[in-house]
Amino acid sequence: MINVVILGTGNVAKHLFDVFMAHEGIKVVQVYGRNHKALSSFGKHTKTTSETSRIIPADIYILAISDGAIAEISSRLDLKEGLLAHTSGSISMKSLPKKNRRGVFYPLQTFTVGRTVDFKEIPICIEAENDSDHALLEQLASTISGKVVPMDSKQRRSLHLAAVMANNFTNHMYYLSNEFCGQKNIPFDLLHPLIKETSNKIEDLAPYDAQTGPARRNDKKTLKKHLAQLKNKNHKELYSVLSKSIRKTYGKKL
Amino acid sequence: MINVVILGTGNVAKHLFDVFMAHEGIKVVQVYGRNHKALSSFGKHTKTTSETSRIIPADIYILAISDGAIAEISSRLDLKEGLLAHTSGSISMKSLPKKNRRGVFYPLQTFTVGRTVDFKEIPICIEAENDSDHALLEQLASTISGKVVPMDSKQRRSLHLAAVMANNFTNHMYYLSNEFCGQKNIPFDLLHPLIKETSNKIEDLAPYDAQTGPARRNDKKTLKKHLAQLKNKNHKELYSVLSKSIRKTYGKKL
Repeated sequence: MINVVILGTGNVAKHLFDVFMAHEGIKVVQVYGRNHKALSSFGKHTKTTSETSRIIPADIYILAISDGAIAEISSRLDLKEGLLAHTSGSISMKSLPKKNRRGVFYPLQTFTVGRTVDFKEIPICIEAENDSDHALLEQLASTISGKVVPMDSKQRRSLHLAAVMANNFTNHMYYLSNEFCGQKNIPFDLLHPLIKETSNKIEDLAPYDAQTGPARRNDKKTLKKHLAQLKNKNHKELYSVLSKSIRKTYGKKL
Repeated sequence: MINVVILGTGNVAKHLFDVFMAHEGIKVVQVYGRNHKALSSFGKHTKTTSETSRIIPADIYILAISDGAIAEISSRLDLKEGLLAHTSGSISMKSLPKKNRRGVFYPLQTFTVGRTVDFKEIPICIEAENDSDHALLEQLASTISGKVVPMDSKQRRSLHLAAVMANNFTNHMYYLSNEFCGQKNIPFDLLHPLIKETSNKIEDLAPYDAQTGPARRNDKKTLKKHLAQLKNKNHKELYSVLSKSIRKTYGKKL
């Protein structure tokens, strides 16, 4: 049994709490948070506190707070024992205080309030300063996920950036498409099957080979017609820049 | 029973052929194409020809060829009867010859060689010049799809542009992410569950609300760190432009 204290009450904290609670080998012995309202929803299931001095002993302390708060909050902790691990993709393990046993427990997923995700499929990237702490994080991670990946801070930082491209920028494309549909009175859900197929495709096909569309074909006539249709300056600029980038990518083959 | 002639032997032609053949109410009586090798694979199942003068009578002629070839090929046809419909998102119905009964049969999906898609889910946008031809296209479309959408050429052109944003540009984001992973020795398949969740999310959540990431939070520190990590000029430019567009989108709320 691994005893865990979760530090934080936000989105990631909630998702980790739920999945830890659902597994026999893990016990969330306490949740720490400064937001009393958020804390109370955890209070129905385990101990809670909003004072760092009242944090109880545990095997692992999972710091699930915003990147910007990690250094400050962790410096105020006075842990007598246990491993302190943050959950951030872009913050180095060394940002945690030197006096602690330090680690990282980074689940690579986009978490949304009210949406359950299948943790079994989610890669969890772990890092620790010594073998026994690494083994402890591996035990925690492999209890909830089928994909545990050891990774140092530098590589994790790169992975996080790749995730921003594949997730945040992709979602922004959906947004732009949705916004344009709204302007033209087209129901955006007509595009759902297309969006699904595009994302499913890359499981079998490299994105390079999966690319279609006028920019890939260097179909200048359609590109020009599309640009003429776009009245919104932002849409116009993004259409140009992205089409240019696609044309450049396939340029050698044209 | 609707008798269909397919004109074209490419990717869309193949997918339509397969789904038409799988439905009792439709008979593909002939496939026309100039590429003999491609034509031969259809020849095992139905009649084929590479001469326009040998095209046989049918209820509907489905023109599944590239946008750029539609005007030229259709002008060389000498159809005695039947409805001539193209399958393009961006070409007007009026690009077909005036002497023909004209229509559009546009399945909104990205078709990939060797990948079967579930036509039941795919919206098919139809257009015709008169009610009886509209009814004929509706009968053909509703045999294979649960989502038949009447749409004029102007709206279909907008829908096609929206599809380019949601599909082609999205796939290019996957490509950029994949390319960056390659440079950093990160297996791109670690990102598959994230990509899947991002695309699944929009079935329940508007893309505006689903947006996450440093640009949405206006987390300048992370944005700066990410830009410093990117060495490729193209990656740098796209990261900047897209983050700027996300920041602008949420600017009012910051």
